[in-house]
Amino acid sequence: MSDRKLLERELVATAHAMADAARAAILPHFRGQDLAADNKLSEGFDPVTEGDRAAERAMRAVLAERRPDDAILGEEYGAQDGTSGLTWVIDPIDGTRAFISGTPTWGTLIAVGGAGGPEFGIVDQPFIGERFVGGFGLAEVAGPHGTHPLATRATRELSHASLFTTFPEVGSAAEGAAFHRLAKEVKFTRYGIDCYAYALVAAGQVDLVVEAGLNAYDIQGPMAVINAAGGIVTDWDGGPAQDGGRVIAAANADIHAAAIPFLKGVQ
Amino acid sequence: MSDRKLLERELVATAHAMADAARAAILPHFRGQDLAADNKLSEGFDPVTEGDRAAERAMRAVLAERRPDDAILGEEYGAQDGTSGLTWVIDPIDGTRAFISGTPTWGTLIAVGGAGGPEFGIVDQPFIGERFVGGFGLAEVAGPHGTHPLATRATRELSHASLFTTFPEVGSAAEGAAFHRLAKEVKFTRYGIDCYAYALVAAGQVDLVVEAGLNAYDIQGPMAVINAAGGIVTDWDGGPAQDGGRVIAAANADIHAAAIPFLKGVQ
Repeated sequence: MSDRKLLERELVATAHAMADAARAAILPHFRGQDLAADNKLSEGFDPVTEGDRAAERAMRAVLAERRPDDAILGEEYGAQDGTSGLTWVIDPIDGTRAFISGTPTWGTLIAVGGAGGPEFGIVDQPFIGERFVGGFGLAEVAGPHGTHPLATRATRELSHASLFTTFPEVGSAAEGAAFHRLAKEVKFTRYGIDCYAYALVAAGQVDLVVEAGLNAYDIQGPMAVINAAGGIVTDWDGGPAQDGGRVIAAANADIHAAAIPFLKGVQ
Repeated sequence: MSDRKLLERELVATAHAMADAARAAILPHFRGQDLAADNKLSEGFDPVTEGDRAAERAMRAVLAERRPDDAILGEEYGAQDGTSGLTWVIDPIDGTRAFISGTPTWGTLIAVGGAGGPEFGIVDQPFIGERFVGGFGLAEVAGPHGTHPLATRATRELSHASLFTTFPEVGSAAEGAAFHRLAKEVKFTRYGIDCYAYALVAAGQVDLVVEAGLNAYDIQGPMAVINAAGGIVTDWDGGPAQDGGRVIAAANADIHAAAIPFLKGVQ
């Protein structure tokens, strides 16, 4: 086995160990009656739970043990430099409002890659026990009904496409207007299922996810999984999306090309 | 054991058998690649799947075997008269758009009761393997992490409350305006998780669900579960909601009373 293959195998095993550790740290806090949700931002509502912080600490402990030379960018504890050229980008609980509402649509997001962006990623839903993985030749979901390959859908026309986003407002007024112009063209639009929508693009169930105001840790895990399943993730102008911002995830290049004209060039 | 207790026990066992039969009928169709979603209504988009019809047939077969004298009202196959004074109200797949999108927030809804409305109900989520039951002294959820009692939340003020609905439009223009007046008062509003939102009211995770344009089979199962867990379900004027229409489900009487003024009297 080549050194590269050995490295990839180690990274995949490390990512699974991180996701396992995050599950164990988060689940005791999910649907707890006394969940303390304090405000991270002085404006707006962005609850941070004990589960969020405990899970990121658990994932960082896995990296300290297995991959001490890799860099880390995490939602809760920020950036840590590395020397290996690889960076782990992690969000212990993406969808904190879903989490504090008991909805099983939040997820633990993990990505690893070099300067070119995420090469392998995981979207994990601990309550359901469902894990979507993609990269290094892998594209599969393991869940309560077995393990299945991931492959995106072949939908070519907006009039046949489903569109998902988390909030009907979708960012700024201009961003929201662009989104709703696109929403008028699709078969139907659904709201509110957070990172799980990206997993469903990879699983061939959803055609488009469009969001704005994302961070790198919100998108890198989903991006790796969708890329591995045959989809495409870019910003609204068709450029790289690994740093977050305005993001479109599409089942294939054709439906991506059909949607981009409604989104590009928004001020 | 009294005749009444024996009857209740039989009804609970029958409801579980129906939910089990529905699960077996539906799951082979969930996330299938070739799911045929034909249009039930000439206007709008209301997909009906093979799973929907197969599950209702399976539930009706359980009733034909165990409770042949009870009446039935089902989404797919309509009303069937009975002579016992009891009616089963069933929706095999509530949330068909969620279903065809792969989202695990659709559910199988089952209710049974007399002229006064639902006395026992089930909200079942087959993919997760999660079943919320309420009535005849029972209020519990059985899922992937064990069985837990259901009890609604004690939230008293709108400014601390979470509000769920499926579609941001919420019915007619007047209905939508009323909803959004209420939405301005709450801590946060979430969209899109279908009948699962009602289950989360019963589980003490969500404070309010407000919807319009419901049918009896959309609400009777959730209503029984929420009532059993300490919540309250009425129409927007505070009257009976068992026939559907405009519905508010609330964690308790106080938060219900706080929300009703924003909804009542809508033309």
